[in-house]
Amino acid sequence: MRDEAVFSSRWAGDAVELVDQTRLPDAVEVIRCDSDASLGEAIATLRVRGAPAIGVAAAMGVAAAAVRVERAGGDRDAIVGAARASAAYLRTVRPTAVNLPWACDRMARVAGAIAADVPVGDAVQVLVDEAREIQREERDACGAMASHGAALLEELCAADRPLRLLTHCNTGPLCTGGIGTAFGVVTTVHAAGRLEQLWVDETRPLLQGARITAWEADRLGMPHAVLSDNAAGSLFQAGQVDAVLIGADRVAANGDAANKVGSYPLAVLAAHHGVPFLVVAPTSTIDLGVPGGHAIEVEQRSEDEVRLARGATRLAPAASPAYNPAFDVTPAALIAALVTERGVVRSPSTSSLAVHVGSGTDAA
Amino acid sequence: MRDEAVFSSRWAGDAVELVDQTRLPDAVEVIRCDSDASLGEAIATLRVRGAPAIGVAAAMGVAAAAVRVERAGGDRDAIVGAARASAAYLRTVRPTAVNLPWACDRMARVAGAIAADVPVGDAVQVLVDEAREIQREERDACGAMASHGAALLEELCAADRPLRLLTHCNTGPLCTGGIGTAFGVVTTVHAAGRLEQLWVDETRPLLQGARITAWEADRLGMPHAVLSDNAAGSLFQAGQVDAVLIGADRVAANGDAANKVGSYPLAVLAAHHGVPFLVVAPTSTIDLGVPGGHAIEVEQRSEDEVRLARGATRLAPAASPAYNPAFDVTPAALIAALVTERGVVRSPSTSSLAVHVGSGTDAA
Repeated sequence: MRDEAVFSSRWAGDAVELVDQTRLPDAVEVIRCDSDASLGEAIATLRVRGAPAIGVAAAMGVAAAAVRVERAGGDRDAIVGAARASAAYLRTVRPTAVNLPWACDRMARVAGAIAADVPVGDAVQVLVDEAREIQREERDACGAMASHGAALLEELCAADRPLRLLTHCNTGPLCTGGIGTAFGVVTTVHAAGRLEQLWVDETRPLLQGARITAWEADRLGMPHAVLSDNAAGSLFQAGQVDAVLIGADRVAANGDAANKVGSYPLAVLAAHHGVPFLVVAPTSTIDLGVPGGHAIEVEQRSEDEVRLARGATRLAPAASPAYNPAFDVTPAALIAALVTERGVVRSPSTSSLAVHVGSGTDAA
Repeated sequence: MRDEAVFSSRWAGDAVELVDQTRLPDAVEVIRCDSDASLGEAIATLRVRGAPAIGVAAAMGVAAAAVRVERAGGDRDAIVGAARASAAYLRTVRPTAVNLPWACDRMARVAGAIAADVPVGDAVQVLVDEAREIQREERDACGAMASHGAALLEELCAADRPLRLLTHCNTGPLCTGGIGTAFGVVTTVHAAGRLEQLWVDETRPLLQGARITAWEADRLGMPHAVLSDNAAGSLFQAGQVDAVLIGADRVAANGDAANKVGSYPLAVLAAHHGVPFLVVAPTSTIDLGVPGGHAIEVEQRSEDEVRLARGATRLAPAASPAYNPAFDVTPAALIAALVTERGVVRSPSTSSLAVHVGSGTDAA
């Protein structure tokens, strides 16, 4: 199992191949999506999940649709038509992920801009190149975040021994187009021989940490251990955590960060123990239209996510109500630094984030 | 399901009846243990669990063994012999629970002290009375803790509306001989019409909160909701917690309290939000031989408790190690008060606990 590549989706000529994430960790099954319908089903049923990963998979799917038409002898118009139809369909299969319509619209625009006299082979190549460019951008963003984050960690921890890092939820290759956000930083630390231990919060109720992050860590040969979310406290007490790294669903203009439920308690524990708490997320996550965490509405999800494990095993009585917020909001005051592909924003604030997003220069 | 009695074990003439806790919350099954072997199996396999509840069940089992011999026509010596044999066997079926050998030894002592000329009926009655006395003592201790705790809560919270209380693990009737420790306080608040909401931490990995406390709360008609342990943070943020109440496995001489893993993060969150954090436990839990929490060794339990849910459903890869401490230690500095059957110890310390345990008077 170890040291094999971990990927969410990969180009397969006239199809897209995906690791079926719904089967993890019970089985590693690579599925081949060779039609719009099969890829749409895979996205809709979360076989591939994570906003950037979905965008990349859909872009590849649009290009693959064009390849299939070319191989069937279609002309330039048929190729462009297939790509646009594919994009129009795929952008709708999940309602909330912002990267999905963004990537599909970008592919449709490129298809629409292919001039009428472009040879068939070139038309297809333009689409394949664009899908690869989207994937490259996601990969480069992950790589940049990882470099900035790993350098920051070495500086903040200033340890003469390898680091013990704690993470929550899933922020690795399976949900991004590259090595991940927070998990990408950990991967870079590991590659440098500087990782002593990755502590993986199981991340109830949907267990993305236990099911997916632990699997990725195992694949990549990282020293790691899974823990019940509530066991993090005793790790801090025992001095076993050098830093906490998480991703973010949305970062408000003042630096407050919404992320998977359970992130905020880690931030409070980290502050109590003087441990750096880092948020790693691309600048596209920063929403300057939201002034602060108070303005972020917290989605309440199905009670059965709490009452059942993996949708089947009963944990709590059916008669008992359950409280199930999808995420929580960590105030900027508890965040040592926000790491984006552009660099590091220490003690993020409204002014420092505005500079970071506006200028595009490293605010470190 | 609601408003029915909740009990861990009850006297059934020549047998002990138990709610099979391993079947909760899927089914409520009362099993009848009419032999030493069947009761021993029930204790060993955690059908009945919780130190006080086990002690009470075993004491009843010793008395029931005597009743069975009487009904079979046995004489005084046969009755005493059966009681002592029962006690000698039951005290060994679980290694760690301190109440189990304590209750069995007490029953064996009483049996051994029955004079040679005592009539058969009286000999049995002495044993039945002793078992009932053990149960009464546990029930009275719960009642006293509940009264002290409820009065303290009203004072600390000084709220003009009903209270929102958060608890962790299981501290109710099913694991005690009465209404419970922390849960008993909640029950008393509820009986007074002063409970707005009980927040029930699911308490990974063994889910005693989701499986058992939620079931008890539902049975008793309490307004309640189950949550993933990591969702408590957002409840504090939303101002939805007036106080936290937990039990304790052991309290050190300085007031540091060892309890189910996940208690310490709640104490840190409570301190961060200025919410009172109360430990409710009988004085028998206070171990003056242990100077502080640093001297309490934390048991590491099976990794599969984390990797699987309810022993069956896979959550994390089999290849991933798991960190699974049984409990954590909350420093006395984070504990607003310790509530025992004797009263309240505010801001517990080595001196105040010594007075509380030594004098037997209310240190409130």
